[in-house]
Amino acid sequence: MENYAFVKDRLYCPGPTPVPHASAVAALQTSVYHRTDLFREKFLYARKMLHPYFKSPEAPLILSCSGTGAMEAALVNLTNAGDKVLCLNGGKFGERWGKLARAYGCDTIIYEFPWGESPDLQKISALLSAHPDVKAVFFQANETSTGVAYPVREIASVIAANSKALIIVDAISALVAHALPMDEISIDCLLTGSQKGFGIPPGLAFIALSNRGWDSLSSRPRFYFDLRKEREGQVKGETAWTPATTLIESLIPSLELLGEQGVDGCDAHHKRLSLACQAAAKAMGLSLFSKSHHSQALTAIELPAGMDGSKLLKYCRTRFGTVFAGGQDHLKGKIVRLAHLGVVDELDLIGGIAALEMGLHKLGHSFPLGAGVAAAMTALNAAG
Amino acid sequence: MENYAFVKDRLYCPGPTPVPHASAVAALQTSVYHRTDLFREKFLYARKMLHPYFKSPEAPLILSCSGTGAMEAALVNLTNAGDKVLCLNGGKFGERWGKLARAYGCDTIIYEFPWGESPDLQKISALLSAHPDVKAVFFQANETSTGVAYPVREIASVIAANSKALIIVDAISALVAHALPMDEISIDCLLTGSQKGFGIPPGLAFIALSNRGWDSLSSRPRFYFDLRKEREGQVKGETAWTPATTLIESLIPSLELLGEQGVDGCDAHHKRLSLACQAAAKAMGLSLFSKSHHSQALTAIELPAGMDGSKLLKYCRTRFGTVFAGGQDHLKGKIVRLAHLGVVDELDLIGGIAALEMGLHKLGHSFPLGAGVAAAMTALNAAG
Repeated sequence: MENYAFVKDRLYCPGPTPVPHASAVAALQTSVYHRTDLFREKFLYARKMLHPYFKSPEAPLILSCSGTGAMEAALVNLTNAGDKVLCLNGGKFGERWGKLARAYGCDTIIYEFPWGESPDLQKISALLSAHPDVKAVFFQANETSTGVAYPVREIASVIAANSKALIIVDAISALVAHALPMDEISIDCLLTGSQKGFGIPPGLAFIALSNRGWDSLSSRPRFYFDLRKEREGQVKGETAWTPATTLIESLIPSLELLGEQGVDGCDAHHKRLSLACQAAAKAMGLSLFSKSHHSQALTAIELPAGMDGSKLLKYCRTRFGTVFAGGQDHLKGKIVRLAHLGVVDELDLIGGIAALEMGLHKLGHSFPLGAGVAAAMTALNAAG
Repeated sequence: MENYAFVKDRLYCPGPTPVPHASAVAALQTSVYHRTDLFREKFLYARKMLHPYFKSPEAPLILSCSGTGAMEAALVNLTNAGDKVLCLNGGKFGERWGKLARAYGCDTIIYEFPWGESPDLQKISALLSAHPDVKAVFFQANETSTGVAYPVREIASVIAANSKALIIVDAISALVAHALPMDEISIDCLLTGSQKGFGIPPGLAFIALSNRGWDSLSSRPRFYFDLRKEREGQVKGETAWTPATTLIESLIPSLELLGEQGVDGCDAHHKRLSLACQAAAKAMGLSLFSKSHHSQALTAIELPAGMDGSKLLKYCRTRFGTVFAGGQDHLKGKIVRLAHLGVVDELDLIGGIAALEMGLHKLGHSFPLGAGVAAAMTALNAAG
């Protein structure tokens, strides 16, 4: 996208998300050596500020990698080769758990269900009864490719009721947008990335384990993603390897901003934005791709039959600077995904909806222009 | 370190190194979605600009992790469990290759030699003759803990003359400060981190393989560090996983700055700084810790007998804002390591030497104050 004088770049994709000004500026603090007391203090402060989003027995570990690195850390630290595992796959990211588990030689059962749906609890229960030796179940809290937020609490209950399997949740696009307290939900490993709900640039991942998780560490070879080694150092503010220092500088102002709302406030804010976005889609005469369990992180909207989604995205990007995400794999060109994830406000959402409306109109979809933003505003006002 | 009004933070540690202003500012470019043509162009440009420092058959791959992540990528992609490997260990980072190889179940031979020395070529030759089945040899180009730059060309020749082993070089603190052309030296894998010679914050690593390296990929499980998968995407500007976008933004101005000097110009600049630093140490009545093969990235200086190195470092940090590195393990408190690595200029070096001089004087070491900087300036002027 060209940087036109009167068009600002705006991210409505499900990560990277908009970065607060204070976080962007904090990355200018580049004269940082990580093996100093000052950095250790900042690092411990960042872990402490992250803790409420996890509600894990200990503050989460901070890794220098993308979310996928944290997924690998979870799989490698919590399973041995040959372990039977169950992966729930209802989209592009569910698929990733299966690929990871297979790459590392797990005896991998994939429960595949249609994109746009959430997993059938009965089916999970039946699979666990049929395979009582399942050591771990892997799933997404939010399937980014489809805009479905799985009912994590219910899924975790079914797993706990039917097995002793570890419950490992990729909350990369879910955390902050959805409250996921590990102390209430029996999650054994919860992980996320920096460029999603926490609204800073990509390059950090956060991961927390339950006590049961820490007691279940595998004997696999590992080095960069050795969680036990990281834990030993991080309680003192030391990372095993050189951390991405400027991203940690960025993280702190973001955590302070989010902290003003608290975990439940963040959840409520994202819920409000997602309801407004859903209302807007309907007012534009479009259907949501998710049939139930709509995500609070992003809304996946079906495009009018015959419209070329990639043209729509390109038009919105060049004309309004808005970066939406399209569909992946068989959904390419068929849906648009509008994220309301990260440190985003109500006017950000309205701006995104306005761009989408004008783009849809330009490409021939017929509806009363302005209906989307009006519906969103009505929903936001009704929410108080 | 407190941020006093009249004391600027200055890094003289061997990474993170000082970040050019343009690179720090580039990280403000946070509204970046990586799956766009604009980002792909930037990514390909960064790889192209990195290429001359590697002189590998293909431009290096960019990974989002620290240098240790790239070391793991090298080991995991190029060895199988049970493979016999030889690791040269003459310091803290040589030790790391051995730990990594053992963690991943290699049949690991460690050739350990005294800290401060470079490996004996005869001994390497003898080890390879005794173990003709060695699949890979791992070593550092520059041992950061001791300030010794190993004679990579000679070591590689000895390995090639005595075996078919892959030659895998950790150039994390060496690259840019030392020219290491893979096309002239028979290196099969060369890797580095972003926060060293390239002078940007930590969080990226760069790795290149020879053709023989690409033909020798292992069958080990891997996912985040799967170099074949990265290669497939990166030729088109796509990373397998979300890249650290703001660091890639930072990287570009730094590559442009360094590119003005060229690879040989960068080597010559760092050589000039290191000779000046060595002259300064001698003029202060101190010995270099490295007995030969002095690094162009940093100079390790023995402290006067009886002086507490940690006190010296703390004094310099709080009084002058200078972050030096001390000694590691048994050298703790006994040496100071002054880095001249990254995008540093001659006045940066002189400032560091001045702080060290004043600190040494304050802590009771007797020598004509100013002798160090005078010697450095004489050496710099003599170099033209």
